[in-house]
Amino acid sequence: MATIKDIATHLNISTSTVSKGLNNAKDISEDLRLKILDTAISLNYKPKRMKSKETQLLCIFVRNMNYLEENQFGYELIRGFKESALYNNFEVQILDVTTELQSYENYDRYMFKHGYKGGFFIGFTFDDPWIKALNKTITPTVVLDNPESQATYVAYVGTDNMQAINLAIKHLKTLGHHHIGFLNGHSTSKLSLLRTNAFTYACKKYNMDSNLSLIKYGDYSKECAKKYVNFFLNHHVTAIMCGSDTMAIGMIEACNDLGYKVPEDVSIVGFDDLPLSAFVNPPLTTIHQNRRDLGKLSFSTLNNLINGVYISQTLLRPRLIVRQSTLNIQNKSC
Amino acid sequence: MATIKDIATHLNISTSTVSKGLNNAKDISEDLRLKILDTAISLNYKPKRMKSKETQLLCIFVRNMNYLEENQFGYELIRGFKESALYNNFEVQILDVTTELQSYENYDRYMFKHGYKGGFFIGFTFDDPWIKALNKTITPTVVLDNPESQATYVAYVGTDNMQAINLAIKHLKTLGHHHIGFLNGHSTSKLSLLRTNAFTYACKKYNMDSNLSLIKYGDYSKECAKKYVNFFLNHHVTAIMCGSDTMAIGMIEACNDLGYKVPEDVSIVGFDDLPLSAFVNPPLTTIHQNRRDLGKLSFSTLNNLINGVYISQTLLRPRLIVRQSTLNIQNKSC
Repeated sequence: MATIKDIATHLNISTSTVSKGLNNAKDISEDLRLKILDTAISLNYKPKRMKSKETQLLCIFVRNMNYLEENQFGYELIRGFKESALYNNFEVQILDVTTELQSYENYDRYMFKHGYKGGFFIGFTFDDPWIKALNKTITPTVVLDNPESQATYVAYVGTDNMQAINLAIKHLKTLGHHHIGFLNGHSTSKLSLLRTNAFTYACKKYNMDSNLSLIKYGDYSKECAKKYVNFFLNHHVTAIMCGSDTMAIGMIEACNDLGYKVPEDVSIVGFDDLPLSAFVNPPLTTIHQNRRDLGKLSFSTLNNLINGVYISQTLLRPRLIVRQSTLNIQNKSC
Repeated sequence: MATIKDIATHLNISTSTVSKGLNNAKDISEDLRLKILDTAISLNYKPKRMKSKETQLLCIFVRNMNYLEENQFGYELIRGFKESALYNNFEVQILDVTTELQSYENYDRYMFKHGYKGGFFIGFTFDDPWIKALNKTITPTVVLDNPESQATYVAYVGTDNMQAINLAIKHLKTLGHHHIGFLNGHSTSKLSLLRTNAFTYACKKYNMDSNLSLIKYGDYSKECAKKYVNFFLNHHVTAIMCGSDTMAIGMIEACNDLGYKVPEDVSIVGFDDLPLSAFVNPPLTTIHQNRRDLGKLSFSTLNNLINGVYISQTLLRPRLIVRQSTLNIQNKSC
């Protein structure tokens, strides 16, 4: 592990200047300060507070605080994460990350300056500068529901999509459905690819007469359900699996608009189990993930990364929540 | 949590008889003893030693102790697992599991009787009775390299196949290969399916002119390489990715037998990084997984299951080890 002297030697400056740079003193130039920080990071220098065994700091980065309040996704996640972190002697801080912060501050530099040993990202999109920067980060980082990164120090935590789709298709099979449509997410994302593979695998396993030709790709909005509802109904599907509750709720509305009833004419399955999903009409059969456990799992994954065990992904087992949007059609004349 | 009295009430016998059954006393019938054990398990009764915070017991089940000695797969795995377990106040025992034990002893009952809080399976096959029983187990259990189980209390730990195949195909791409064959494992296993998907995804990503038609399914033996070598050579592939080092070594021999040189005429990539692979001729380019980290990860996954966080799988990030079985063909006339 590098010392202040190593940084000084590397930059050919005095150790006291290095100290000033590391401690954000006002009497050196911003340019030199950044050079000192970047050298410290590249030489793997650890500030004192990161060497201490007592308090180790982690940071949860939230892209949009509304995300926490509106549907409590974030609330339970953070609760689970903090519980596990506390038990393992970590202190957790939470930061609302704006686009501005991301544009003027380098992620690794930010983590280093604040003595954070690891980061946990919630609610970011692929377009966020810090998400893009994760491909080259050297900071242990866990990202929720983003299976894209190839970086050694980044792990992905999420729900097991293979299991989730399997549960849904198995459920529809026991209700007598054989011809099922699938409204997936964005066609270019790896998550959608995983779900497409899971869908075709499960359809084969349960002898469905559904395949790739009954999959359409939306954008997780209600509107895209309206775009594809005719395709599914024209293909005489008896059930539609949707990649999110929002699309499923949109699909129920779109069916109603065309005079089709859910679940009498067509069964609908969602994905996420949003709090809202229990209260729509009809209440939605959907895939649930335990968000508090997902938070605990995110901490345990991050703790492994911090200890040099490079996990690429950890998946939580999903549960199927059966409500009224799916119907048994075995005794129905087709 | 149930008490001895609950078990007694349930079976309509005295609490002292229940005690005898739980403590393997000789003066009750074997039939009654098993009935008491099964009732205790089904009512979620925990023996005293499992309630203690001091010592919690885990068991590593090894199918074949030779597996540990011959290639040190197991040695490093167990070392990593025990290190992490010890740090978290668990005691670990190791058991050589014979077919006999599996046939006369029920897995859950065995775990209960010995006060084990969780199990870790190494080197089992799909045909092992205890692996089959895992579909219904209520004992937290981690299984290595077996992505089949759908059971809540069972998690799978292994290498990230998507990443692994991506690393190999990316490597071959940078060496100028565009037409690559893939000798996969058993055609019916989920692991092979995952790898097939990973292969087609990576080939598309790197603009290869390889696809499903260049995949063959073997059985991880040297012999199956001999069976398919002509297929690959007749299709003029410049490189062959193999699902195990053993198949890769078999493929090198099979090419040599037909007068083809590796890597001059065809590049070969393995999977596993067996200790042997560095010493074959030519030394094998292959996918490495850190077995000690895999052991640590297996403990951390099991510990989550024990604490009620139901992971379905945890994947370790693989590394590509470049040796001499792959060659740059960019300056070679084709």
